Amino acid sequence: MSFTRKYRADSQAFDLSRHNPADKSDVPDSKAERRAATETLSIELDRLQDILYGQNKHRLLIILQGMDTSGKDGTIRAVFRAADPLGMRVQAFKAPSEDEKARDYLWRIHQVVPKNGEIVIFNRSHYEDVLVPQVRGWIDEAEFKRRLRHINNFERMLAETGTTIVKIYLNISKEAQRERLQERIDRPEKNWKFNPGDIEDRKLWGSFMQTYQTVIAATDSDHAPWYIVPADSKSSRNVIIVNILLEHLKKLDLAYPEADTSGWPETVE
Amino acid sequence: MSFTRKYRADSQAFDLSRHNPADKSDVPDSKAERRAATETLSIELDRLQDILYGQNKHRLLIILQGMDTSGKDGTIRAVFRAADPLGMRVQAFKAPSEDEKARDYLWRIHQVVPKNGEIVIFNRSHYEDVLVPQVRGWIDEAEFKRRLRHINNFERMLAETGTTIVKIYLNISKEAQRERLQERIDRPEKNWKFNPGDIEDRKLWGSFMQTYQTVIAATDSDHAPWYIVPADSKSSRNVIIVNILLEHLKKLDLAYPEADTSGWPETVE
Repeated sequence: MSFTRKYRADSQAFDLSRHNPADKSDVPDSKAERRAATETLSIELDRLQDILYGQNKHRLLIILQGMDTSGKDGTIRAVFRAADPLGMRVQAFKAPSEDEKARDYLWRIHQVVPKNGEIVIFNRSHYEDVLVPQVRGWIDEAEFKRRLRHINNFERMLAETGTTIVKIYLNISKEAQRERLQERIDRPEKNWKFNPGDIEDRKLWGSFMQTYQTVIAATDSDHAPWYIVPADSKSSRNVIIVNILLEHLKKLDLAYPEADTSGWPETVE
Repeated sequence: MSFTRKYRADSQAFDLSRHNPADKSDVPDSKAERRAATETLSIELDRLQDILYGQNKHRLLIILQGMDTSGKDGTIRAVFRAADPLGMRVQAFKAPSEDEKARDYLWRIHQVVPKNGEIVIFNRSHYEDVLVPQVRGWIDEAEFKRRLRHINNFERMLAETGTTIVKIYLNISKEAQRERLQERIDRPEKNWKFNPGDIEDRKLWGSFMQTYQTVIAATDSDHAPWYIVPADSKSSRNVIIVNILLEHLKKLDLAYPEADTSGWPETVE
């Protein structure tokens, strides 16, 4: 069994509250070692991404979800530091615009899915369109279930037409969030990250956890798996995520395309 | 029962071969009368489209499918002659580009679905992505069924998020197609419409009919109904289609939005 297997959400028996946000049992003991491992593996990730881009055959979609301060931005910076921006894109989803609200909520999502040779990272995603309305009580139970069905069908279609999907929930504790929000208030260079709306969401922590539980259980599958990554420690989170991504990349038949060298000169004059 | 009801494909008992391409039993007897009726009704269609646009609430997607020469272009010209291009779009789908082929086949379709206040007409559609590969033997039975499932899920999602979908199969006979193709060869001003590839498709007529039968039966539903419109007579085809569209528009709660007139001057100086 791969070491990342334990982080998979298993839809049947999935219980978010049993996943420990501070778990470090499978990563190196010291922060320095975890950082060094992440750096080494992110270079390997870059190597595989270069092949994926050259091969122009596979598509990788990485979905990052998590509460405010759970580390979505930081994960992207740490894990994809070495990656080539050619063939890689980060898509952040904020509140939908008027134009986006005039269509179905998957419209803006579908437009930016990866094409052949691309890795695309969703910083938040269509999951916001089912999580937030449910927690805020904007939709009823029937609509909640309908959206879960839409999302499952959409992801299954993407997977069946050649997209590898990896979904990551950054699992932080309520106490870790408190510390990080406090830091954003206390440290002038972090002030810009503070949004008073985050305090409102924090008040609904229990409701968010309950909804994440239901949503993850309902949308975990072998073709679009969820990983619950302990995220109280940033260095631990990063090394786990880079391992998860490498495992998925190694399952693809990555290889540089063979060039037809007939007619090639031996040397270029 | 509305007069257009008889043209609905009923998935349970649907039999394409029982639909007569030359049926004129429900339309006015003379061509002049049929043309006059179409013209009158297309003005009514324009009136309702103006409300739909102003109301900015509903979305209407019309999908036109049919064999070569079945009259997709002619239908659009006759039925939407009076309509305002503001809030109306025709989307024609040709063979996919390299960029489109690098994603799932619904990617380019989803991008151009109607938004609030819009009527969009698909001149060919995602149905080509299941019909042609099946007839040509490019996909196996499992993939054929998978695509039918993708399409059903996609259309259901669109319908559930507020899009009215009307699908029209222009039903011409093989003999009528022969005459129309011959005309394209014989008449210089129609030469530009002739494509030698149409002759290849014509050789596969039986296989296309069989595939349309399966595809229509598998994708007809109350939220995305198929209509089988007799299309050997152009004037008959047009008057039937404008009636179908009017019926669907009248089922929407179309109304100009109420303006908040408080603070309005009685006269503009």
